[in-house]
Amino acid sequence: MVNSDIREQLRPFFEPRAVAIIGATNKKGKVGNVIFENFKRNKEKGIFKGNIYPVNPKLDEIDGYKVYHDVSELPDDTDLAVIAIPAPAVPETMKKIAEKGIKAVIIITGGFGELGEEGKRMEQEILEIARANGIRVIGPNCVGVYAPDTGVDTVFLPEEKMDRPKSGPIAFISQSGAFAAAMLDWAAMAGIGIGKMVSYGNKIDVDDADLMEYFAQDDEIKVMTFYIEGVKDGRKFMETAKRVTKIKPIIALKSGRTEYGAKAASSHTGSLAGQDVIYDAVFKQTGIIRAEDFEHMFDLAKAFAKCKLPKGDRIGIITDGGGAGVMASDAVAKFGLKLAELSEETIKFLKERFPPHAVVGNPTDVVGDTDAERYRLALEAFIKDPNVDAILLIVLFQVPLLDEKEVIDIITDYAKKSDKPIVVVSMGGYKTDKYAKMLEERGIPVYPTPERGVRALAGLVRYAKYVRGNGE
Amino acid sequence: MVNSDIREQLRPFFEPRAVAIIGATNKKGKVGNVIFENFKRNKEKGIFKGNIYPVNPKLDEIDGYKVYHDVSELPDDTDLAVIAIPAPAVPETMKKIAEKGIKAVIIITGGFGELGEEGKRMEQEILEIARANGIRVIGPNCVGVYAPDTGVDTVFLPEEKMDRPKSGPIAFISQSGAFAAAMLDWAAMAGIGIGKMVSYGNKIDVDDADLMEYFAQDDEIKVMTFYIEGVKDGRKFMETAKRVTKIKPIIALKSGRTEYGAKAASSHTGSLAGQDVIYDAVFKQTGIIRAEDFEHMFDLAKAFAKCKLPKGDRIGIITDGGGAGVMASDAVAKFGLKLAELSEETIKFLKERFPPHAVVGNPTDVVGDTDAERYRLALEAFIKDPNVDAILLIVLFQVPLLDEKEVIDIITDYAKKSDKPIVVVSMGGYKTDKYAKMLEERGIPVYPTPERGVRALAGLVRYAKYVRGNGE
Repeated sequence: MVNSDIREQLRPFFEPRAVAIIGATNKKGKVGNVIFENFKRNKEKGIFKGNIYPVNPKLDEIDGYKVYHDVSELPDDTDLAVIAIPAPAVPETMKKIAEKGIKAVIIITGGFGELGEEGKRMEQEILEIARANGIRVIGPNCVGVYAPDTGVDTVFLPEEKMDRPKSGPIAFISQSGAFAAAMLDWAAMAGIGIGKMVSYGNKIDVDDADLMEYFAQDDEIKVMTFYIEGVKDGRKFMETAKRVTKIKPIIALKSGRTEYGAKAASSHTGSLAGQDVIYDAVFKQTGIIRAEDFEHMFDLAKAFAKCKLPKGDRIGIITDGGGAGVMASDAVAKFGLKLAELSEETIKFLKERFPPHAVVGNPTDVVGDTDAERYRLALEAFIKDPNVDAILLIVLFQVPLLDEKEVIDIITDYAKKSDKPIVVVSMGGYKTDKYAKMLEERGIPVYPTPERGVRALAGLVRYAKYVRGNGE
Repeated sequence: MVNSDIREQLRPFFEPRAVAIIGATNKKGKVGNVIFENFKRNKEKGIFKGNIYPVNPKLDEIDGYKVYHDVSELPDDTDLAVIAIPAPAVPETMKKIAEKGIKAVIIITGGFGELGEEGKRMEQEILEIARANGIRVIGPNCVGVYAPDTGVDTVFLPEEKMDRPKSGPIAFISQSGAFAAAMLDWAAMAGIGIGKMVSYGNKIDVDDADLMEYFAQDDEIKVMTFYIEGVKDGRKFMETAKRVTKIKPIIALKSGRTEYGAKAASSHTGSLAGQDVIYDAVFKQTGIIRAEDFEHMFDLAKAFAKCKLPKGDRIGIITDGGGAGVMASDAVAKFGLKLAELSEETIKFLKERFPPHAVVGNPTDVVGDTDAERYRLALEAFIKDPNVDAILLIVLFQVPLLDEKEVIDIITDYAKKSDKPIVVVSMGGYKTDKYAKMLEERGIPVYPTPERGVRALAGLVRYAKYVRGNGE
């Protein structure tokens, strides 16, 4: 079912034995310096385990590393080349790379197809060399690869400018480099773990379909997220996506949806955005989940990374704030889900144990004077209830009698032992944020609004239905 | 045009000469203690300038404050009573308050109409006493008032549980108490200034229309935000809103939109949510801007608080990331705005000054190697261009050559001297967040996604059109 050649072809991008940095320099802030520093720092931390070979005809040494004057001089274990030299010099360098037998190349350099005919001609020349020699190319005009587990980091924005996220089971693939960088920075703050990021820019060779195929076989990755402006080989994309979505969920954010956006996309990456209805149809047919914006994309990714898949679409809501329960109920309707009709056993169980001013039903409102025990009782009942497929748990940690750590322990415990997905909504500020982060570290996805929590559940429900073969 | 009686009637809620806290106690964490502590802390800080009179028959002193045993003993300057004693004792206390001549009462206590017939009867009794004696009542079953400039704070969640936002030109009115508390906490983190918050709970007396009327005349308030589950006196609401929206923008988040949500709202505040289409029509007729969720509500409020109103709907986009520009262009179409067609002068001006790889157009992409000067040039041109009504400025601060402080100075400078609204989009993490906060402190609204920035501009455009009398 899967193409296992791709696994071997793309492996050096993520786990190189030795990386050549062509255009490495000691001038701080320059692309060739930041990339070198990234590898060096990760090597010193013991994360990057390969060798690092700077290439620059004018230097003999950078920071204690021997500099090679030419690609031809590189040691034989070099299996990845990262190119950060001016565009006109790239085709010649590609020839040397081919002679040397290096099979994986990331071309960071911009100034190719996006600038016009001469750039396109150079891209064609590079591609011909690559095809003739079995070389796979990421780029040009890209930020390349970020793989925190193996220490590969060609993101040429220094750490002073941009944080790096921790590792996790999400793969993130972005056509736009600046967007990729902003998202990595954002993910670091949001506590979202990115196992592998690839930004392919002009994608003359390695494309979305190749990366889907690779990540489908990558045990570290549970869910893939794509930011796409345009797809070149539609048939390959569809054929691959159809197979891969049965194995792992794929979420796509496709911009250029409107006439205005399509025109802007064409100026940006030269992508023909195409009619949006066609993309919509393609995503539906192939089981790709379409995200409305980047918050939606990562909201979904977080749910897939952390949750079990629900058996149906009947949502149970537990809250300690009535207003938030109303908003969540609205969202259940808006996103095409059902509010579960609680079983008589659940109603009876809770009514016997709750004070009269708590509201037993769906939503169940444990109300503002709740303690952690009421949450435990509600979770216990909802998990046992055969009419509930998934649980949205709203915790306003601000309420005075709630022991935050106790309720976090309870939620973690039930999420582990239950087969049903549980997502938490926590609205608040710095103090509640701390508790939200604690929950996330224990594997529970947390959302800042009821709408976003329900929308994430809707993604799980839809994908679960697709995988079970009940269609879109 | 406005009812100025209401100004005098409601003034003691926000600027009391002396507050009686009925049910004040020294038991930490209890409602009557937290409220007392709030006033005491604000008095010590010099923010609350009135007198504080704790009332409790069983105590003689709390923290050095003399405790009054009965309402009848209170000094004559008492003009606000905050009630935090069990529900059954409230009607009797109201009689004493009437005798004492106090004209403003906040009833924090719950256990009234929301619990059934006996509670409704008590509410009726309280209301009759109030009406007969010219007393205005906020509550019962509410968190009351938060007014940071004058130090009124009846929010009974202690500071350890919940942060308080700084002051600012936004009034926030919430039917739900827990939601109000969560939002204050959130606003504190988001850096959103709330000048006055009122959470009225069961609203037996002071209602949305009264508060609209009051805030219309309050010079500290520029924009009002309402979280509403249901409106009781529809005619009064409409008549007031119609007048007030011509003076200041009103943004409403109305939940219970769907059948599921309406049912949940009825269990929560006993509100008859009513058919959502009716609310939609009412909001449109009265010029109230409807928010989709709380992020939308405060995104809009921030724009109104900080921006000038645009003269039309033609948006100019400046970006240093092409992908983000595409997303913003899509959002312009999605939210019913127009992408401005730049004048020939603008195109010429920028083409002469920009490097060839920058994209002059709408969006104008200053690209990833931008410095602050390119932003200055683009702003200069867009502000002069008669075809541009409002500007969306996307700044990915991560790009390597951009001096963050310099670009912040430039944006602040142009926002001040221009008549056009300028909103900024900054995507990123902790580092860029710091720059976003700097911009906000200087009066520029900043949004975390292109969609949310454009959506905020759409709110400004729509309200500007309404005020000019060109209808909805």
